[in-house]
Amino acid sequence: MKLYYADTLMPRLACAVATLVRAPVEFVRVDLFRGEQKTPRFLALNPNGKVPVLEDGDLRLWEADAIACHLARRFQPALWPEAQTHELVRWLSWNARHFTQAGSILYFEHVIKGQYLKQAPSERAVERGLQEFRAGAQVLAAHLANRRFVLGEELTLADLALATALPWTEAAQLPLDEWPVLRHWYAAIESLEGWRHPYPAKPLAFADLPPQA
Amino acid sequence: MKLYYADTLMPRLACAVATLVRAPVEFVRVDLFRGEQKTPRFLALNPNGKVPVLEDGDLRLWEADAIACHLARRFQPALWPEAQTHELVRWLSWNARHFTQAGSILYFEHVIKGQYLKQAPSERAVERGLQEFRAGAQVLAAHLANRRFVLGEELTLADLALATALPWTEAAQLPLDEWPVLRHWYAAIESLEGWRHPYPAKPLAFADLPPQA
Ligand SMILES: N[C@@H](CCC(=O)N[C@@H](CS)C(=O)NCC(=O)O)C(=O)O
Ligand SMILES: N[C@@H](CCC(=O)N[C@@H](CS)C(=O)NCC(=O)O)C(=O)O
Repeated sequence: MKLYYADTLMPRLACAVATLVRAPVEFVRVDLFRGEQKTPRFLALNPNGKVPVLEDGDLRLWEADAIACHLARRFQPALWPEAQTHELVRWLSWNARHFTQAGSILYFEHVIKGQYLKQAPSERAVERGLQEFRAGAQVLAAHLANRRFVLGEELTLADLALATALPWTEAAQLPLDEWPVLRHWYAAIESLEGWRHPYPAKPLAFADLPPQA
Repeated sequence: MKLYYADTLMPRLACAVATLVRAPVEFVRVDLFRGEQKTPRFLALNPNGKVPVLEDGDLRLWEADAIACHLARRFQPALWPEAQTHELVRWLSWNARHFTQAGSILYFEHVIKGQYLKQAPSERAVERGLQEFRAGAQVLAAHLANRRFVLGEELTLADLALATALPWTEAAQLPLDEWPVLRHWYAAIESLEGWRHPYPAKPLAFADLPPQA
């Protein structure tokens, strides 16, 4: 299995889950700034031209949530409790459409534009991102008021997916500190070695892959 | 079971699936223009203040994809083939983040703003919506070139979720006709009576519900 990634928002979730569940994957780093994700070879893996992608035999699985789900079900099924599929889908959908969606606006403005491209963030986008992040954080904090993790007492993929943007809390200026219960919940995730260090020291480089058979 | 809805984008998917699988739900119409979704009584069902919500005993399930998943697994499990959960998650994620996301931009500009609020659509938003819709449609059309449905020969929730915005193809000016394979695929979904007529003739009205116990 090969996991094509970059050290950006969505791929980080897939890499962290792969590392946490000790999936036997080879990590292949794709250089987004050089546009490797738009080369014919990469587009054959993912026609969307985006990382992450998991190559597993004939399967080319894209979308970070799907890769995380696949690896979790295979190597650590407790992260995807089958009986609660509707709850996992609830939180993945809410995360994609609201919580990490808001986080990714702030990530884009402050990290991609601000740090990498040295451009000024758009005030309007930051304002909208903050408003939506706060609306989501409020709902999540209320839900976690009487639970250790999102589905109850055990960590599941719902927690990890909801935490997708949180490694960038400072860099993306996410106002997480306004909700101590979220800080506390996220501290439990951050205590996991594989979450903190999701990438191997020496990944393969996409440009160095041998020519295809 | 009660399904709280309005005849707008995301709730329509939940209603269509409830109708298709003949789930024994009572439909409760929520008047969004009167702001019923922001009343304390509704917020107790869904703290996000949005439809749809499914009330099923103690469960208050929000997010249309999750309601659809829950009802499918319970009443027509072939729509959610457990062994292919990662494929379902792939397409639900891609749909939430790209395909229906693009469709909902065009729906908002042309249907909500254009038809209901009698406002001019934003040209920039329309352009971005069209570009993202076309990028997604291209990927989906290529995938469907040699398959009847998204996961293979059988209809699943992946197809229905991907079709969320398509009942508004004309009203939202979605350029679906540029891909005959998508027209053909969607025609099979449109041939389902429950997809075409997802709402009952006489739903309950949220305002008329009896006071709570
Ligand atoms: N919906 C995809 C989105 C993946 C995505 O946005 N990847 C970004 C990096 S965070 C990317 O590859 N961007 C490069 C590009 O679009 O050219 C997922 O959830 O995995
Ligand atoms: N992420 C939710 C979104 C639901 C949603 O956006 N509902 C809209 C109608 S399509 C709504 O209730 N809007 C009213 C409001 O936000 O006040 C889902 O997928 O179910």
